Amino acid sequence: MSTQKINIAVIGASGYTGADLTRLAMRHPNITIKALVAKTHAGKPMAEVFPHLAGHGLPDLMDVDAVDWEGVDAVFCGLPHGTAHSIISELPVKIKVIDMSADFRLRDVDTYEQWYGLKHSAPELVKKAVYGLSEHYRDELSSASLVACPGCYPTAALMALLPVVKAGMIEASDLIIDAKSGVTGAGRAPKQGTLFSETGEGLSPYAISGHRHAPEIEQEVSRLAGQDVIVNFTPHLIPMSRGELVTCYVKLSDGNTISDVRNALQEAYQDRPFVRLLDEGVIPATQHVRGSNYCLIGVFADRIKDRVIIISSIDNLVKGSAGQALQNFNLMFGLEETAGLEQLPLFP
Amino acid sequence: MSTQKINIAVIGASGYTGADLTRLAMRHPNITIKALVAKTHAGKPMAEVFPHLAGHGLPDLMDVDAVDWEGVDAVFCGLPHGTAHSIISELPVKIKVIDMSADFRLRDVDTYEQWYGLKHSAPELVKKAVYGLSEHYRDELSSASLVACPGCYPTAALMALLPVVKAGMIEASDLIIDAKSGVTGAGRAPKQGTLFSETGEGLSPYAISGHRHAPEIEQEVSRLAGQDVIVNFTPHLIPMSRGELVTCYVKLSDGNTISDVRNALQEAYQDRPFVRLLDEGVIPATQHVRGSNYCLIGVFADRIKDRVIIISSIDNLVKGSAGQALQNFNLMFGLEETAGLEQLPLFP
Amino acid sequence: MSTQKINIAVIGASGYTGADLTRLAMRHPNITIKALVAKTHAGKPMAEVFPHLAGHGLPDLMDVDAVDWEGVDAVFCGLPHGTAHSIISELPVKIKVIDMSADFRLRDVDTYEQWYGLKHSAPELVKKAVYGLSEHYRDELSSASLVACPGCYPTAALMALLPVVKAGMIEASDLIIDAKSGVTGAGRAPKQGTLFSETGEGLSPYAISGHRHAPEIEQEVSRLAGQDVIVNFTPHLIPMSRGELVTCYVKLSDGNTISDVRNALQEAYQDRPFVRLLDEGVIPATQHVRGSNYCLIGVFADRIKDRVIIISSIDNLVKGSAGQALQNFNLMFGLEETAGLEQLPLFP
Amino acid sequence: MSTQKINIAVIGASGYTGADLTRLAMRHPNITIKALVAKTHAGKPMAEVFPHLAGHGLPDLMDVDAVDWEGVDAVFCGLPHGTAHSIISELPVKIKVIDMSADFRLRDVDTYEQWYGLKHSAPELVKKAVYGLSEHYRDELSSASLVACPGCYPTAALMALLPVVKAGMIEASDLIIDAKSGVTGAGRAPKQGTLFSETGEGLSPYAISGHRHAPEIEQEVSRLAGQDVIVNFTPHLIPMSRGELVTCYVKLSDGNTISDVRNALQEAYQDRPFVRLLDEGVIPATQHVRGSNYCLIGVFADRIKDRVIIISSIDNLVKGSAGQALQNFNLMFGLEETAGLEQLPLFP
Repeated sequence: MSTQKINIAVIGASGYTGADLTRLAMRHPNITIKALVAKTHAGKPMAEVFPHLAGHGLPDLMDVDAVDWEGVDAVFCGLPHGTAHSIISELPVKIKVIDMSADFRLRDVDTYEQWYGLKHSAPELVKKAVYGLSEHYRDELSSASLVACPGCYPTAALMALLPVVKAGMIEASDLIIDAKSGVTGAGRAPKQGTLFSETGEGLSPYAISGHRHAPEIEQEVSRLAGQDVIVNFTPHLIPMSRGELVTCYVKLSDGNTISDVRNALQEAYQDRPFVRLLDEGVIPATQHVRGSNYCLIGVFADRIKDRVIIISSIDNLVKGSAGQALQNFNLMFGLEETAGLEQLPLFP
Repeated sequence: MSTQKINIAVIGASGYTGADLTRLAMRHPNITIKALVAKTHAGKPMAEVFPHLAGHGLPDLMDVDAVDWEGVDAVFCGLPHGTAHSIISELPVKIKVIDMSADFRLRDVDTYEQWYGLKHSAPELVKKAVYGLSEHYRDELSSASLVACPGCYPTAALMALLPVVKAGMIEASDLIIDAKSGVTGAGRAPKQGTLFSETGEGLSPYAISGHRHAPEIEQEVSRLAGQDVIVNFTPHLIPMSRGELVTCYVKLSDGNTISDVRNALQEAYQDRPFVRLLDEGVIPATQHVRGSNYCLIGVFADRIKDRVIIISSIDNLVKGSAGQALQNFNLMFGLEETAGLEQLPLFP
Repeated sequence: MSTQKINIAVIGASGYTGADLTRLAMRHPNITIKALVAKTHAGKPMAEVFPHLAGHGLPDLMDVDAVDWEGVDAVFCGLPHGTAHSIISELPVKIKVIDMSADFRLRDVDTYEQWYGLKHSAPELVKKAVYGLSEHYRDELSSASLVACPGCYPTAALMALLPVVKAGMIEASDLIIDAKSGVTGAGRAPKQGTLFSETGEGLSPYAISGHRHAPEIEQEVSRLAGQDVIVNFTPHLIPMSRGELVTCYVKLSDGNTISDVRNALQEAYQDRPFVRLLDEGVIPATQHVRGSNYCLIGVFADRIKDRVIIISSIDNLVKGSAGQALQNFNLMFGLEETAGLEQLPLFP
Repeated sequence: MSTQKINIAVIGASGYTGADLTRLAMRHPNITIKALVAKTHAGKPMAEVFPHLAGHGLPDLMDVDAVDWEGVDAVFCGLPHGTAHSIISELPVKIKVIDMSADFRLRDVDTYEQWYGLKHSAPELVKKAVYGLSEHYRDELSSASLVACPGCYPTAALMALLPVVKAGMIEASDLIIDAKSGVTGAGRAPKQGTLFSETGEGLSPYAISGHRHAPEIEQEVSRLAGQDVIVNFTPHLIPMSRGELVTCYVKLSDGNTISDVRNALQEAYQDRPFVRLLDEGVIPATQHVRGSNYCLIGVFADRIKDRVIIISSIDNLVKGSAGQALQNFNLMFGLEETAGLEQLPLFP
């Protein structure tokens, strides 16, 4: 086990993503947390903002301008989209950046500006950014200086789909992705729609056909399919805090079978420590990955001929965000891929 | 308002379905509850089994053999499948029966026996049974003596699909029904899988491609499509008690548009008091029907060309079971369709 | 049943309290809803703000200045404290007012100003206000023109305590009230602390020894105890939307027994339609009153000699707010006490 | 860090307690899991019973008779009370036992037999058992061969009370302990009362004045108070899976102040890694210890003179069971007290 110590700063430490990154980094054998950055809460102890992290000597939250970048090797950025790109573009060049926002995920700046409704201030950085779907971009990650961690939904969906899209086993033009997420995905900023009383004991779809994770999924699927792909992506808000599950309804292309699908996934992930292709008949559930970096994938026959159902499940804050960010960090710095990510799921 | 009084018995009053029927019947202006029937709990006050119904002078639970059928005009049956058919077949012929079990839903006895794994003891009654999807079988219900109330999922799915299937607007061979239900759907019998600690803060698909509501949906869709239809039906267990939502992914048949779909639904339900086709952009949520007999339907453009998303939402215990049973009772006895069903949704 | 129709306006219709009042009023046989008043949402259909109330022809939300008070007989006010008193003081005198805010609950204006941190703009109205704990102020309510509906916690606590305090059976100086509430009690305004992700799967006390319902409880207990009483009142936030339960730890005064306590409660509430003193050993639970105006009370022996535990349970939005408001309205207008409040609890 | 490896067996590995012990043991640097024992599930892979633990090479579940005790150094027992004592009494003497059941908690066998309603088959072992409240029995634990881990409620309550009882600062005859627990405390065996639909969106007290944890609390308080103490202990079931919070209402004995209470707790726990006395005004919440071995304690002024409120919060499955068991194991084997217990709380 490497005993190297890498100094990190977490920007956006007062959000759920930043806090979960901090939680994981605190137990990472090769990380020293040098700075926790937040705007509104600058000056407060981290424990005041996130009491579950009290008692471990974390640095106080500080303004981004107050950070001494000299001693910082890597930055994790958990800011909302639209704020990340300008801050990241001003960091010293020698600092490696793992961005958990949406600002560098879309390779096409026009697409970004159209979906996010704002001007990108660092289009030249977009070109340098590696899309941090760890299992699928390992080689690129090892030499990356800027990583754009995928959205939570794209992570879940692409883990299920990419190997079979790549193998040409399914019709890329007929991908239906019914997605379900816990409420943390909406962040910690107070909104009526994510109040306990609004969300509890109920269930609703949202952003139907208009969610910003759709173009991100399409970007990656199109790349492997060799054609411009439009997908159905329909997210639903579930009364739970953590967890995400996508149910992908796919059509086999000519000559392929459900066994082929299963084999392609098996092959793609057999050496990947965080992905588990479940045995036939075993069903992924979000409960079984809660708090961990695992991704569970199950393949099921459809009642409709030549159709298959692929289901994948992750913790949206871990594999869907902070955990994958740390996994990418490990790959960037040549550390054990699993370092700091060995927590087992918390069930119940 | 009719002041006629009809004497009813509720068989299976110790389950969620029976209790919710009782709750609604207690406030129905034309109902007198003569008997509450349960097996294990026979002899106990209803309030001991369901404390929320205490204090209103309900009859004690009794064994089915102890009921004096003389004064009973109608029976609601909330037994599990497999127990309903034999008890119902022995009731006096003059009693009208509204069955909330699965025993008379499938018109083909072979299909029933295959999916439910048991021999049907009253196949001759199956022929007489009217499928109680109230809005779609009004004429048959007015003269029915035995009504088979649809399953909760089929209710939600068929309300969304039947008008457009009937109009030939969508490809019946390409119906993908992603369904989500609260935990009451699994009943009150203790099972590990429905414990709070197993279900809370998590989400999982179940019975993928093998749920018994699939053949029921297929029966009704096939009937209107004029062909044998196989559908995708994939249910998910959601950490909430009540509520059900189906997200139907459908393909337009040649020459049809999303407006046609919307119009067909509008026309089908414009005079139906419990169905609300939502305005464009308004999204159905289970919170907004909780405790009520309403069904909300929304129609949405898919990102994929020539595809449409139809979503419907009900309370699985009300419109999905006891409420629809009471609605059918109203139609059978020539009462106001809404009698006893005017409760507004309870939100939050 | 009276067929009289009374025209009402609901001020603060965009909050949970106002919406639940509206829900109940819509089914009240003697009410016509003339106006729904809200500030920020003025101009919108009520269904846009509360989709569960869609489809019933409610008037659109309007600004308070736009209301034609001519045709209004009674006003229900669901505003936050501090905004209610000024609006109420400007209403035409002939209009009867049922206020669900805290503005007229405390008879001592100084106490109000101290606890609520603001100047009372209508101290003369405070004198006229009747404290609307329906079961305990029936006579005063029948002639009241302004009713201050109790807070949710005081309702639950006082229902359990007042009859035994009045009978001098317990030591008023030693009242410990451990209170638990669902999240709707905190209202619909977005706050970090009531987000699903903050509140779900967790439990915390709050406002320990400093909650504004403490002086309200003390006011009523002191009045019957004939001495100035200070109580322990410790509220806890529970991960549920509706429901409230108080566990009162009381000390018997000399010569009294648990039977005396039980008898005093029995006598106080025997003719009260919404209060149920539970049989020995039966435990109140919030599930069993959800959505209804009932109050359940249970009396239990303590392990410590000469101590007794009195527990009461209500739905905080109904008996704890809108339901009790409607009950008061009924008493003020000489209607059936239960009119519009006959909904049974919704369980599960 | 010690590199010693200790071979353990977990008896009762198919329950929540056994599973959480296994989860923690899997990441303990000094533990090798030799055997996982379960009765009904013997022969199955652990992953079939607890899918969240899949993929880590755990031994299959086996019958207790099939275990080769030769290579086992320590046994963790997570059986229900009444089954633990006979199995433990038959283990080879050289094996150290950490029992998480209730069978060895009560030093007085008569009290045990009276409260648990069964005959104790190993009364001689009761005498040898050390009560494993880690922070308070450190010396005894270092040489123990059998440890009886406290119940979850006693753990939470005694952590809050013992230092002040010991210092004579509060009246031991006037202890009111209002306790709240998540549903996992009731175990994994299917029961109607712990179904999601029964427990969700609701709250109820249970076992009032009759819970088996009362005599356990009384045993420890009496011991330090030097008198026979009877306490009020009133547990409530909360709609969450994990977490426990006790609100203790205590009366200061003559001459003591709230500062004395705070100081006594500060002194007792200043060197204890898992206990955090919170700063004035900071309120313990179960969310902030979820999944971890921490115990949070807060001290608050009561509105009633000479009364104080002490609140403590733990994860019932960790500090309240498996975590404390592991902490005791560490103390018994001379390991770092925190070994294997460094997981941070999972929030949200």
